[in-house]
Amino acid sequence: MKLYDSPRAPNPRRVRWFMVEKGIEDIEIVPVNLLEGEHKKPEFLAKFGAAQLPALELDDGKALTESIAICRYLESRYPEPNLFGRTPQETAVIEMWLRRVEFGVAAPLMQTVRHTHPALAVLETPNPAVAAYNQQNGHRGLAMLDAQLTGREWIAADRLTIADIAAFIGIDFTRMIKMPIPETLTNLGRWLEAMRARPAAKVAV
Amino acid sequence: MKLYDSPRAPNPRRVRWFMVEKGIEDIEIVPVNLLEGEHKKPEFLAKFGAAQLPALELDDGKALTESIAICRYLESRYPEPNLFGRTPQETAVIEMWLRRVEFGVAAPLMQTVRHTHPALAVLETPNPAVAAYNQQNGHRGLAMLDAQLTGREWIAADRLTIADIAAFIGIDFTRMIKMPIPETLTNLGRWLEAMRARPAAKVAV
Repeated sequence: MKLYDSPRAPNPRRVRWFMVEKGIEDIEIVPVNLLEGEHKKPEFLAKFGAAQLPALELDDGKALTESIAICRYLESRYPEPNLFGRTPQETAVIEMWLRRVEFGVAAPLMQTVRHTHPALAVLETPNPAVAAYNQQNGHRGLAMLDAQLTGREWIAADRLTIADIAAFIGIDFTRMIKMPIPETLTNLGRWLEAMRARPAAKVAV
Repeated sequence: MKLYDSPRAPNPRRVRWFMVEKGIEDIEIVPVNLLEGEHKKPEFLAKFGAAQLPALELDDGKALTESIAICRYLESRYPEPNLFGRTPQETAVIEMWLRRVEFGVAAPLMQTVRHTHPALAVLETPNPAVAAYNQQNGHRGLAMLDAQLTGREWIAADRLTIADIAAFIGIDFTRMIKMPIPETLTNLGRWLEAMRARPAAKVAV
């Protein structure tokens, strides 16, 4: 399999982080230059059907995009350590938290960066009203996450899961615009430190 | 199990539609008045941990929110007909399309309605710039969906899946603001008719 990747972009980073947590080393990484529009070229679109990164080319030539679909597929091929849930009920709780952090934290913060950082204007015309709206929602999401992390080490289970990866990478992307994380959110701060201390944080950058 | 539901709201409608496709009739439906803020009351928050609908109360008293997490859990309890995928690869393709239609079609169109329809101002202060931005994205998503439906009956597989349910309910929600669907999108139009003709369309309203 081959993973088409773009360094620094948050959605591809989820898959690379996931691969480090799993110890997956036999998937070739193919860099694609997002800011130069390499993902919009005809040969890319013909292979993947959408101008999206990350993209996974399977052994049979078929292709997948969407970071979470790719991660869940990789979990079926590399089951340990488990990051999506071991029972239907645990899987549901992890997916519930994955969605809460995606829609409440990661997506709004990623949209904030996208509509604020000048270098990303090549991807989409910056819209300050959209940036402000998303930043407000993202901050509300950070407080929700801080509340969930009260007395808990990880977001959705007694171990790191895909919910932690998606949340952290969304939050960490705001370094690009130097957005401060409120220091009053002490549970969130402790969890951010724990995520930054993982080996994956150094490899999947 | 009990499903806490709000009639007409799109996320709860996904679960009720899913239940009709599955033929699930043994889950009690508990109506909650979203516009009167019943989901923000202390007893609701104590049970579900978030002011979110739909919410599923399990037999052991545990609780789930997030429509897709609830649907995937119900699939584990009621496996047929399959709506999330039979193999890891099919499951990944269905999840890829679910996410493409959620982030590209359903979420932007639902945000458009939320920031346009006067009755929804009780949920969130309407933001015209956010409405315009989302409507533009949603229209781009509709064209993407029309392209995918060229020569295909359903979005993600050779049968209806969770991707069709999420896409249709997002699009159908725009009836509230009488947003026209471009007639040039003929594949989309055919698929919309097929969705409207399903028994679930009459039950899950």
